[in-house]
Amino acid sequence: MKIGFIGLGVMGSPMAEHLLKRFKELYIFSRTKGKAERLIEQGAIFCENIADLAKRCDVIITIVGLPTDVQDVYLGKNGLINNCNTGTILIDMTTSSPSLAMEIYQKAQIREIHTLDAPVSGGDVGAKSAKLSIMVGGDADIFEKCKPIFETLGTIVVYHGQPGSGQHTKLVNQIVIAGNMIGMVEALVYAKNANLDLERVLQSISKGAAASWQVDNNAPKIIKKDYNPGFFIKHFVKDMQLAQNEARNLALDLPGLDLVESLYASLLENGYGNLGTQALIKYFEDNEI
Amino acid sequence: MKIGFIGLGVMGSPMAEHLLKRFKELYIFSRTKGKAERLIEQGAIFCENIADLAKRCDVIITIVGLPTDVQDVYLGKNGLINNCNTGTILIDMTTSSPSLAMEIYQKAQIREIHTLDAPVSGGDVGAKSAKLSIMVGGDADIFEKCKPIFETLGTIVVYHGQPGSGQHTKLVNQIVIAGNMIGMVEALVYAKNANLDLERVLQSISKGAAASWQVDNNAPKIIKKDYNPGFFIKHFVKDMQLAQNEARNLALDLPGLDLVESLYASLLENGYGNLGTQALIKYFEDNEI
Repeated sequence: MKIGFIGLGVMGSPMAEHLLKRFKELYIFSRTKGKAERLIEQGAIFCENIADLAKRCDVIITIVGLPTDVQDVYLGKNGLINNCNTGTILIDMTTSSPSLAMEIYQKAQIREIHTLDAPVSGGDVGAKSAKLSIMVGGDADIFEKCKPIFETLGTIVVYHGQPGSGQHTKLVNQIVIAGNMIGMVEALVYAKNANLDLERVLQSISKGAAASWQVDNNAPKIIKKDYNPGFFIKHFVKDMQLAQNEARNLALDLPGLDLVESLYASLLENGYGNLGTQALIKYFEDNEI
Repeated sequence: MKIGFIGLGVMGSPMAEHLLKRFKELYIFSRTKGKAERLIEQGAIFCENIADLAKRCDVIITIVGLPTDVQDVYLGKNGLINNCNTGTILIDMTTSSPSLAMEIYQKAQIREIHTLDAPVSGGDVGAKSAKLSIMVGGDADIFEKCKPIFETLGTIVVYHGQPGSGQHTKLVNQIVIAGNMIGMVEALVYAKNANLDLERVLQSISKGAAASWQVDNNAPKIIKKDYNPGFFIKHFVKDMQLAQNEARNLALDLPGLDLVESLYASLLENGYGNLGTQALIKYFEDNEI
């Protein structure tokens, strides 16, 4: 099984490294060759372009930035579907649009190419430690074939059904987070203004019905005014907008998601896109005066 | 130390029972005498009215329904402050208004009576198992004196500072929950409409950045259409409205809290007040058609 890997960003690099270690051979491509150097030193084979990589691999994994990048990489003239061999399996691990995942699946099918959508959660920490949660949509038999790959990258690997359902599940994850963020941040805004000791507040609330990963991990960062990104605001806005688009397609009204997206979008407009999602507190602080 | 206990509801009854076991002697009062029977059988002494109980005790705990009940019990003509002895300690464990807690503290001080506000989280399960989280405001030396009482009822006992700060902390807890509920419920609404298998979705999302007590405990109930109250909608609306009032006093704008309160308030208007908070999903389902 010759594996290819496209997209060597914060997530992709450590994932590619795990695959190289496990499968010994790995074909890689990145628009910025500099990002590939570490992997090349370890024995990965750099391909000059996507078409070249496409021809040399049986399974190709992509994890790029935006749905428009996914569109280019898969559906562009020099993209995967035009250039890979019949029978190739293409796995997109970007968080992207469920509708686009279905479109890619259908266009690939015509050329007898298989696709899976398999976005992840767990962030760069999960990518490095190979403890991602991987949410997979596509054909069940293709999922089974790719399980050894997924199990190299993550600890929670779940098959969700038809093409796009991996993406749908990731968006479900992001909708939960949107609510958890607004609850946690408004609670801290209230606590601060009520002159409470925030450390003690966390002691009181972090084990019961208010418990969440966000309270455990991001509330302490807010207290320390540490806005370094575990997860970028700009990426979270992208994900929430994907969820909003799909909700619109499904004729759903999700006022909580809409509210949280609007607050983060205003932070993005104000130049906070490269901060972590915990910087939502700045929305309240900047409007406080 | 002669302890009195007023309010033998779902929370109060098991709490009183723990205190009776630990301290052997307990004076109790409840508007409905029937609620006291079990405790009387175990040896608790029933008092005919609040004034009677007030005269016989050194420490009196209250856990009643609404802030208006707290007002009656503490500030009414036949209430605690008018009738208890100098030096008595009054502990209100109702979830109530921080401003009212401060008012009671000040009025008690004039008569040389001590007060603490000490609301709890953990629900009836926490009350029964004596695993509540107890958030205490008032004078530090009085808190120290009452620690044996609190440690009989809960496992997380935290002192938060001046009178009202226990109540403030409880409202912080409820603001977090408001966000967690809307995130979890909108995510499930989306997942259902995207035709995902909800059990598998929970497998994928429940361990990472979307993890929360609500996802662990209330999402499975929603999947089973189990709307039995762990925590009543009518009580949650009361708590959120308390938080909104205090936020207004602090000149804070908390749009997430306002949104979630408005959705729950509409459920309450539609007769769903006695369902559990997970029935928020009905807001979306009833508007779906």
